[in-house]
Amino acid sequence: MTIAELKNYLGKEVTIQGWMYNKRSSGKIAFLQIRDGSGFLQAIVEQEKAGEINWEKVEKLTIESSVIIKGTVTKHPKKEEYEIQVSEVEILNIAPEYPISKKEHGPEFLFDNRDLYLRSKTPWAVLRIRNQVFLSITNFFAEQGFIRFDTPILQPTSCEDTTQLFDLKYYDTMMYLSQSGQLYSEAGIMGFGKVYDFGPVFRAEKSKTRHHLSELWMMDAEMAFFDQKMNMDLQERMVKRIVKDVLRKCKVELEILERDTTILQNIVEKSFLHMTHKQAKEECKTDGLETEFLADMSTEEEIHLGNKHKLPIFIEDYPFEVKAFYMKKYEKDGVVYAKNSDLIAPEEGREIIGGSQREDSYEVILEEIKKRGYPKDDYEWYLNTRKYGSVIHSGFGIGLERTIRWLTRVHHIRETIPFPRTLTRSKP
Amino acid sequence: MTIAELKNYLGKEVTIQGWMYNKRSSGKIAFLQIRDGSGFLQAIVEQEKAGEINWEKVEKLTIESSVIIKGTVTKHPKKEEYEIQVSEVEILNIAPEYPISKKEHGPEFLFDNRDLYLRSKTPWAVLRIRNQVFLSITNFFAEQGFIRFDTPILQPTSCEDTTQLFDLKYYDTMMYLSQSGQLYSEAGIMGFGKVYDFGPVFRAEKSKTRHHLSELWMMDAEMAFFDQKMNMDLQERMVKRIVKDVLRKCKVELEILERDTTILQNIVEKSFLHMTHKQAKEECKTDGLETEFLADMSTEEEIHLGNKHKLPIFIEDYPFEVKAFYMKKYEKDGVVYAKNSDLIAPEEGREIIGGSQREDSYEVILEEIKKRGYPKDDYEWYLNTRKYGSVIHSGFGIGLERTIRWLTRVHHIRETIPFPRTLTRSKP
Repeated sequence: MTIAELKNYLGKEVTIQGWMYNKRSSGKIAFLQIRDGSGFLQAIVEQEKAGEINWEKVEKLTIESSVIIKGTVTKHPKKEEYEIQVSEVEILNIAPEYPISKKEHGPEFLFDNRDLYLRSKTPWAVLRIRNQVFLSITNFFAEQGFIRFDTPILQPTSCEDTTQLFDLKYYDTMMYLSQSGQLYSEAGIMGFGKVYDFGPVFRAEKSKTRHHLSELWMMDAEMAFFDQKMNMDLQERMVKRIVKDVLRKCKVELEILERDTTILQNIVEKSFLHMTHKQAKEECKTDGLETEFLADMSTEEEIHLGNKHKLPIFIEDYPFEVKAFYMKKYEKDGVVYAKNSDLIAPEEGREIIGGSQREDSYEVILEEIKKRGYPKDDYEWYLNTRKYGSVIHSGFGIGLERTIRWLTRVHHIRETIPFPRTLTRSKP
Repeated sequence: MTIAELKNYLGKEVTIQGWMYNKRSSGKIAFLQIRDGSGFLQAIVEQEKAGEINWEKVEKLTIESSVIIKGTVTKHPKKEEYEIQVSEVEILNIAPEYPISKKEHGPEFLFDNRDLYLRSKTPWAVLRIRNQVFLSITNFFAEQGFIRFDTPILQPTSCEDTTQLFDLKYYDTMMYLSQSGQLYSEAGIMGFGKVYDFGPVFRAEKSKTRHHLSELWMMDAEMAFFDQKMNMDLQERMVKRIVKDVLRKCKVELEILERDTTILQNIVEKSFLHMTHKQAKEECKTDGLETEFLADMSTEEEIHLGNKHKLPIFIEDYPFEVKAFYMKKYEKDGVVYAKNSDLIAPEEGREIIGGSQREDSYEVILEEIKKRGYPKDDYEWYLNTRKYGSVIHSGFGIGLERTIRWLTRVHHIRETIPFPRTLTRSKP
């Protein structure tokens, strides 16, 4: 019997096991805020009805003490909330003075005590939305015929930028922690057609911004016989599915977070926008932003376009030189572009997805590997994907924490993962 | 349009994109074995019907070339298999001589070329079963009201045995790769009630047996207000769910693996067995095995009991001294036992799950931490779970690869993960 199930027991006698979140008394009546992990509940103890023994127990109860209460389920007169009229109280464990109080704590204090902070309402709501997003993505891919393909964390070579890698001694060799499973997933589609991996990746980023974690979760999907257009269509359907599920299944959580869902609701109905990187830059320039045309999109530009259009935007066809070696490229008017897209979320969500059609020519990708000075031998197995039965294929990656930060609108990305790891935080 | 969907298109014209797995010709008729990731298919090309241009293409096709074929779907006269009578062939990419041939290759060769070996039927079947097991576990826990709780891979302290840890430099400190997320999940249940994590863990095991991986996937579940009996009941329901789903949804895969499913089918129906560690040891002794009563169960003992009883067995109440510090203990006749269980799978599956009720007394667990010489400061946050509102709780961990090895009966555990990492293998 959990708090989440109370609505099915109106007028019935129930037993709830949980923790006391808060208490206020007013003469001979006490209001206990109880939580049990599934939800929050107000339990009302009337001294007269519950009897002296139970009343004494209520007086002893401190914040975060564990407790069993019995009583009858009633409905809050005004709100869609269920309460218990308590008949019996059993104390399980009395907590000493609880470090996290009603007063404002600084974030460093809260994250030094992350194990306790996780009991508060905001983390509860945020991490339950995380759970839902994970489930929505997992079930979406299962329904689309994808196979989950767990790529290795310990990698002998790096995928892209080697400056942000953690390395470690692995028996008598050195290995790196994965920044992305993409190259392995590309090998996976040659056997399984459509695969995704979804696990932790690591970035030794020396930046202290509120957008960066050193350990984060990424979902990478790769699809044989998908061109870039099919790739973007799949991404749009996945994002819509996530948003729809969160709106439907996480109502309580979104309310706790006071999330205005107007724009999210709109996203489920409307088509996402598309503009080329060049068009996006031009629009930013027209709108008065300082703009460098052949560079990546800046944070300011992403936020500006997202706030302006209030819908997710696929920014397509970046200059190839700012993108990764494995992307399919084409030339137009003397500029080489990638067949790629970044998906910008509105409401300051910024880039949540990066994807592209992949280069499928053995010769072209080998040349690019040489040009960038990557050791060919390390990529021999990867090149096999283009050597033995190469096919048109595409893929994309979505950052779980970035997506949750956008959906929940918490200020700092560290709120979106149970025990964050950043440049300055490795504990608890 | 995929091979898996063919049965819905009997008599219809279809287009399939895939790779040529094998080819045999007999005069003016060619049989192409085609795979597209979703399944395998025989495509029949009759020179006369398909025409000269298509016939020439068929003659050019090499193993693992990528191809598009068009034709009409027919049913195999004797088997539950669908075929295509080919009208048109389009070559996408001609593969050079393929390294993996029909002849027997040694496992080292196959795993040196794991990226290519993944295209073979056995890995295809095994890793699709892995996908199903992951889905079954994920959906089972979602239905039971659990929250997915991603514990950190980078940990400042170790959970149990420090000799098997990989360490690495994390900015200006040292950290370990997770061996288990359990302690973090125990903190998680204080906020969320029931949580699980499911991700990679790492063991620097110097052993070269066919049971050991250095990087593997573990699912850890923790439940507030669960005693050991409820814990075992949950495990039984989860294992039954996994086996039932695999039997129902992975028929093709089990056939490819020539898996006799008699015992698996039995498992879905029957209750699992229970015996205490003492009873298990006594039975092994009676059956003629060399037995050390106060030691862990040996490999031989686990295999013996599994083969004999042909059902999963909960071996309960191990001597506490061979088990981890966080387990609930009790004393009987001068021996201290843990309130724990290992679940032994039949058919040489050995231990696939380890679980226990957790010690919920702050004083008892603190004493045990001191006795074992673990640094108390590192466990301060963990001790908070017993300090602020301690509750009875239990949990268990299931090894994904061990479970898949049991279900598929492949010889070596390295077959059960896309790119295995062992003492002697770090590539590709």
